[in-house]
Amino acid sequence: MNADKIPDIIIGRLPVYLRALQRMADRGMRTTSSQELGDNVGISAAQIRKDISQFGEFGKQGTGYSIPFLMDKLRSILKVDRMWDIALVGAGDMGHALSRYQGFRDRGFHIVMVFDNDPTKIGEKIDGFVIEDAAGMVEKIRSAGIKVAMITAPASSAQEIADKLIQAGVKSILNYAPIHLVVPEGIRVQHIDPAIHLQRMTYYL
Amino acid sequence: MNADKIPDIIIGRLPVYLRALQRMADRGMRTTSSQELGDNVGISAAQIRKDISQFGEFGKQGTGYSIPFLMDKLRSILKVDRMWDIALVGAGDMGHALSRYQGFRDRGFHIVMVFDNDPTKIGEKIDGFVIEDAAGMVEKIRSAGIKVAMITAPASSAQEIADKLIQAGVKSILNYAPIHLVVPEGIRVQHIDPAIHLQRMTYYL
Repeated sequence: MNADKIPDIIIGRLPVYLRALQRMADRGMRTTSSQELGDNVGISAAQIRKDISQFGEFGKQGTGYSIPFLMDKLRSILKVDRMWDIALVGAGDMGHALSRYQGFRDRGFHIVMVFDNDPTKIGEKIDGFVIEDAAGMVEKIRSAGIKVAMITAPASSAQEIADKLIQAGVKSILNYAPIHLVVPEGIRVQHIDPAIHLQRMTYYL
Repeated sequence: MNADKIPDIIIGRLPVYLRALQRMADRGMRTTSSQELGDNVGISAAQIRKDISQFGEFGKQGTGYSIPFLMDKLRSILKVDRMWDIALVGAGDMGHALSRYQGFRDRGFHIVMVFDNDPTKIGEKIDGFVIEDAAGMVEKIRSAGIKVAMITAPASSAQEIADKLIQAGVKSILNYAPIHLVVPEGIRVQHIDPAIHLQRMTYYL
């Protein structure tokens, strides 16, 4: 299976399917259909069948999908059948909220380091770990072999932080700063900016 | 101009252009080209020209775009040439972080009400406003005429909250709860779930 051959738009839907399947499993369900899964995620049954069939034949005609089996497959495809350590840079309100967020662990992620360059924050404790000096970031991230990072710093410093993260070996960056990050080929960035999402909706009001 | 005729994928890129233009303006720039704007947002110049031309002829051959003019046009198209009052439901870590977020005001948004159903939180002050009892949410949002809301409550209560918001007249919901919300025709929902974004990237690791 060649990663480059599957369109990223399909990859982007797999975590949504996995999340919905997890909720079904939490409710004690063992099997589902593409129709039922589709109703839960607002995507057509045909699209779901087409997306999933890119990776193999995971469902059975008539009986549908085994939820635990499909979850295992999706976790393996998305490589969240393991835990990814995360470095977070920027210990402001958003950084604190994410550091304490309970929703990462059972989805494959674990924040293990938080950095900031504000002397009044360095040394402060958040839920069991200590905010570290951003000056030592590159070395610490590199020696820990961390590949995934989150930026929750102001827009003015986000690009510089991204450059350092990449220098440290990070390959995937979730960026909360309201700025588009420019990164070299082979580095993935996802952006979260609530104002962007809100403006996309006010158009229709 | 018929809103239904412009694909939502194009609408989704306009706030990204607006954000980049704002940063250019902040740096004192007055004009830009589709090439330069594209370099700033990671989108091709041709795509940008095509997207913007959906709404009229805003650039000039040879001289490019006037940044203040294009910003005014985009703000008007996205209806953020005015302020939208926002109701936020769920005063946990994320709710607190968003309540204090400084990046909404100059992009058309203003959180004016925060609700929670936890008696230990009701009455608590966040930056000048007071957390209100979620029991009175529908009436308060309706009388204030609020059309935009954010949900930062747990997944288990998010759908019920969304139903109430819609009952109160809300048309646009930014949902931070890790669950897909089912809403009637005419209601817009955008979802923010960091684990979804992270899983989309680990696929490539």
